[in-house]
Amino acid sequence: MGMAVSETIQLAHGSGGKLSHELVEELFLRHFHNPVLACLEDAAVLPLPGDGHPPGAPANAPVRWAFTTDSYVVKPLFFPGGDIGRLAVSGTVNDLAMMGATPLWLTAGFIIEEGFRLDTLKQVVASMGAAAGEAGIQIVAGDTKVVERAGADALFINTSGVGWIPAGVEISAANARAGDQVILSGPIGDHGIAVLSRREGLQFEAPVESDVAPLNHLVAAMLGASRRIHVLRDPTRGGLATTLNEIAHQSAVGIRIEEAKIPVRDAVRAACEMLGFDPLHVANEGKLVACVPRSEAVAVVQAMQRSLYGEGATIIGEVAEGPSGKVLLKTGIGGTRIVSMPTGELLPRIC
Amino acid sequence: MGMAVSETIQLAHGSGGKLSHELVEELFLRHFHNPVLACLEDAAVLPLPGDGHPPGAPANAPVRWAFTTDSYVVKPLFFPGGDIGRLAVSGTVNDLAMMGATPLWLTAGFIIEEGFRLDTLKQVVASMGAAAGEAGIQIVAGDTKVVERAGADALFINTSGVGWIPAGVEISAANARAGDQVILSGPIGDHGIAVLSRREGLQFEAPVESDVAPLNHLVAAMLGASRRIHVLRDPTRGGLATTLNEIAHQSAVGIRIEEAKIPVRDAVRAACEMLGFDPLHVANEGKLVACVPRSEAVAVVQAMQRSLYGEGATIIGEVAEGPSGKVLLKTGIGGTRIVSMPTGELLPRIC
Repeated sequence: MGMAVSETIQLAHGSGGKLSHELVEELFLRHFHNPVLACLEDAAVLPLPGDGHPPGAPANAPVRWAFTTDSYVVKPLFFPGGDIGRLAVSGTVNDLAMMGATPLWLTAGFIIEEGFRLDTLKQVVASMGAAAGEAGIQIVAGDTKVVERAGADALFINTSGVGWIPAGVEISAANARAGDQVILSGPIGDHGIAVLSRREGLQFEAPVESDVAPLNHLVAAMLGASRRIHVLRDPTRGGLATTLNEIAHQSAVGIRIEEAKIPVRDAVRAACEMLGFDPLHVANEGKLVACVPRSEAVAVVQAMQRSLYGEGATIIGEVAEGPSGKVLLKTGIGGTRIVSMPTGELLPRIC
Repeated sequence: MGMAVSETIQLAHGSGGKLSHELVEELFLRHFHNPVLACLEDAAVLPLPGDGHPPGAPANAPVRWAFTTDSYVVKPLFFPGGDIGRLAVSGTVNDLAMMGATPLWLTAGFIIEEGFRLDTLKQVVASMGAAAGEAGIQIVAGDTKVVERAGADALFINTSGVGWIPAGVEISAANARAGDQVILSGPIGDHGIAVLSRREGLQFEAPVESDVAPLNHLVAAMLGASRRIHVLRDPTRGGLATTLNEIAHQSAVGIRIEEAKIPVRDAVRAACEMLGFDPLHVANEGKLVACVPRSEAVAVVQAMQRSLYGEGATIIGEVAEGPSGKVLLKTGIGGTRIVSMPTGELLPRIC
């Protein structure tokens, strides 16, 4: 009978009854198509071949799994360079990749406001399907809830993900060691400024697009160059400043970076100056920071530069014994300042 | 420095900055305490012992994983017999248990409205911790987002779960076979009526409490009695009617049940009559339906009756060759009617 795309979401789409079933069969199954999801069970059953090891894992290596969750509440839902669907898949894939894990499976949970346009939902779901395809992962289970209209035309998406960690990979924000080189995969601040520009209707000379992207293939290329990567983190909410502070704190090391080495697009820098933002505090959704031993740094950077989303990879500083838990920035004019996490809310609803 | 519980959630609690870190360390880590979550990595790393097999799994059996997600938007957040926290843990544990899986790990994603009371959040988180303890699972990863105030004092929780399926267990809504006995674990409709009564301020002669509970130990007892369970499902949104229709449809069988055999508490029946609801359409959060071969049915029912949450287990009907996809109810007065899924929204925000 078909679901007309000009229709809107009704409370009954979340009731578990006939409209719920239609939504699953005519929208989610179409865009997330895979045999596991199509079983429509209460939980996805994920058989592993043969001896129960993940594809590619050595038969007798201990298997470690990575499991993560993130909810996405970005406003607006569509912004230059991406949308909430691409963000919801990329963000969770990246959380797995930052543990050195190979992402395998995602779940998708939708909370939708009554009256939300079905054609808009279809665009978002199609975008999720495309991002999942790019990342090479499957969306294996889902859930939809509908809440009463509060006037906001709101859509929230949770994605949770499971991946496996190859033998010999020991990546943790607690593993940075003095002497490690700090690598950044490219220019910072694009996502935050892109979302803000669309939300506030700001016009910049050059348009800024979000960097939102799945980074698992980039991480695979990095691990191909060296298994001795100590730390991987994606600087999302709270920006590069927050991520480096977390690493310095969890590893009990000092991190020294140089302002002149941190790439920031001219348009992003101009927007930050206009708005009074520090680019170090602005969110990214397709960048990563790595700490790697000095002996491995050039090989890792070169592998990144040959990979999609890593073309702008560069060394921005290094890890020191101390001061423990602190991030120090050598400024363009030669001084040094402590880089803090943002204390307030810079940009709400950024991811 | 401590987080005063009389405070409210600010947008900055979702920013990834200092307030986010405080919320994680002073609330979530305290109630979900386990070594995996405490690592505060981007994804939980879940090491399996020795050869990478789940605890208790035979060393050379193929491992099958179950992975599920659900978002919880119940209104009100606290209702007789439970709250959104107990619901969010139980619901996802139950989705895993309905595949015959042993639940191991959960993630928790919070979407919180600005201004939400921190002491209320603390109550919910403590309830989640208690339910996780009862179920014997760990909450290993989490995420918090804060959205602007829309006046609704809203809290939404997503939980996703991973478990493993023991060798020899083959449970699916597509596995019902003619001759299978249909077992119901206890009286229906308690959750829906309990939530509705609190929401609408209804007074019934006898108070109705939600049945919300984790059913994984009950399922383990059932599997201890017989591995030949064909179908397990929990009749949540859409009630028993929807669940039986899903089984009849996915297994291409007919299901025949007897009204006189379906337990409904007097207070629930009275409330349904007053409100014009069919108890078969009302949500449950601590009940399950099983289809098992006739030869196994008594042993399974007896094992259930000896278990917490299964005391009221009873056989309510059986599976037939046809009519395929249909559920037939023998009514109290001796007639037969087709049981349909609810077509509209009976009770929004029920789970």
